[in-house]
Amino acid sequence: MAVIECVPNVSEGRRADVVEALVNAIRRVPDVRLLDYSSDSAHNRSVITMAGDAAPLKDAVLALFDAAIPAIDLRTQTGEHPRLGAVDVVPFIPIEGVKMEACVALVKETAAEVARRFQVPVYLYEEASSNPARKNLEDIRRGEFEGLATKMSAPEWTPDYGPSTPHPRAGASVIGARMPLIAYNINLATDRLDVAKKIAAAIRQSSGGLRFVKAMGVKLEERGIVQVSMNLTNYEKTPMFRVFEAVRREAERYGVNVLESEIVGLVPAAALIGTAEYLLQLQGFKPNQVLETRLRAKDGT
Amino acid sequence: MAVIECVPNVSEGRRADVVEALVNAIRRVPDVRLLDYSSDSAHNRSVITMAGDAAPLKDAVLALFDAAIPAIDLRTQTGEHPRLGAVDVVPFIPIEGVKMEACVALVKETAAEVARRFQVPVYLYEEASSNPARKNLEDIRRGEFEGLATKMSAPEWTPDYGPSTPHPRAGASVIGARMPLIAYNINLATDRLDVAKKIAAAIRQSSGGLRFVKAMGVKLEERGIVQVSMNLTNYEKTPMFRVFEAVRREAERYGVNVLESEIVGLVPAAALIGTAEYLLQLQGFKPNQVLETRLRAKDGT
Repeated sequence: MAVIECVPNVSEGRRADVVEALVNAIRRVPDVRLLDYSSDSAHNRSVITMAGDAAPLKDAVLALFDAAIPAIDLRTQTGEHPRLGAVDVVPFIPIEGVKMEACVALVKETAAEVARRFQVPVYLYEEASSNPARKNLEDIRRGEFEGLATKMSAPEWTPDYGPSTPHPRAGASVIGARMPLIAYNINLATDRLDVAKKIAAAIRQSSGGLRFVKAMGVKLEERGIVQVSMNLTNYEKTPMFRVFEAVRREAERYGVNVLESEIVGLVPAAALIGTAEYLLQLQGFKPNQVLETRLRAKDGT
Repeated sequence: MAVIECVPNVSEGRRADVVEALVNAIRRVPDVRLLDYSSDSAHNRSVITMAGDAAPLKDAVLALFDAAIPAIDLRTQTGEHPRLGAVDVVPFIPIEGVKMEACVALVKETAAEVARRFQVPVYLYEEASSNPARKNLEDIRRGEFEGLATKMSAPEWTPDYGPSTPHPRAGASVIGARMPLIAYNINLATDRLDVAKKIAAAIRQSSGGLRFVKAMGVKLEERGIVQVSMNLTNYEKTPMFRVFEAVRREAERYGVNVLESEIVGLVPAAALIGTAEYLLQLQGFKPNQVLETRLRAKDGT
């Protein structure tokens, strides 16, 4: 059985009864694990985390749209967070026993059904988009709900699925597939913020560094040290050990040592197992050699 | 739910119908996963690997005894492998969501019930034994079935459970708890067997090295290199990265590099995750930060 994670972001974070109704719509779908949900009142936005196999997740997303469209009206919704739709963004994330390609297929099936059933236009993003100008969520969302009708009238912003005009209340939705994010910080044994900022600039993609690293230098005032604070957006292609070694080597030239690192929140086991393979110079290691994976495999003897 | 592995060794590896009957007795127990079984004709011995929570595993071991005692008679059984009983050795191994102490408790319950129900004397071993002279399987099994009656008449060999005389057909059983073994080899970029042997001697417990390492130096003839071949018997107390670093540093003094390493068979995810924690200098990392662990946790939201 595949494990896919799905993290819908909805444009409602103030009315607790509405959020509860949306979450309950997901709770009613069999074989979907609701893992977490949280609301931000200033952003007027909620993030729901769930997991399951492809078919039940698709049902859960459709149930969420079904509950959200009558309850959320973007013509009157306000909040700090940019948004294009009532169900604003829906990323699918491959976790276990599933390839990115299968997640992309699930995205497209789900998007087609959302468009058909609710007449909501859908843009694909990240790995599900084959148009380089429409891979990045920020590019798609620029102009927000208020600018959507004008934006959609341009031929380059014809949606991937559904009508070429916004849904009157629910706008448009952005559905896609991406790798799990890892929030990873490396603390340096110095109070020099300039060093952390120079290292961040050296290792992040935007200024010439590693492809799947976002980084900034920050000061941890209360501890008197600095931190290279990162998001790793594809641990398969830019692995954790390579990021760690790159930061360590950059720090060396300023005479600074790495004090420690930390993972904020969750990390896929494969990201850590890959790191161990590197340190141990493991050859020919296969994921099914991990005891827990074997124990959970479907085929017994 | 806890995951415990149990690997009974039975003294029958030639009569396929008997082995099949023993395995079928386990297959009939609900909530037990039969993972593997294999027979060795020369040893006249079969090894069965299964997993589950405590209560079903206990039922499975009792079902195995129930099937084995009428089918195996040690008075006529012969084979190369030393043995004390029809169901010779039964180790329980904590895998996930369970402490060693809980496995030891399960061993004692199972042993008491085996003794009561089948009048088979039982010795506890490894972590389940509190007697230093009776921790090691080889010490308990010395003298084999043929010497058992004499051995048991000595007060220091009174069994932990059951009668003080052998079961006429089934001898005695050794039941215990231990950590998972990791078969771990490090290949050196040299053909000098003396180097591999010196490193093995330096790092293994028996000659003064690390507590939970067994090691020997061997030649890989076809590749023209040598190997430090190891069994790691407690990866929590003697972790893989410490073993790797110890071998690497010992090799350095002979001017020899580590070429690669390999894990033979299965490895617990925790052993690799611990290695990543070391390399990344991770602080405050908790097992429930591993995404897969979180996904499998019982309590959803």
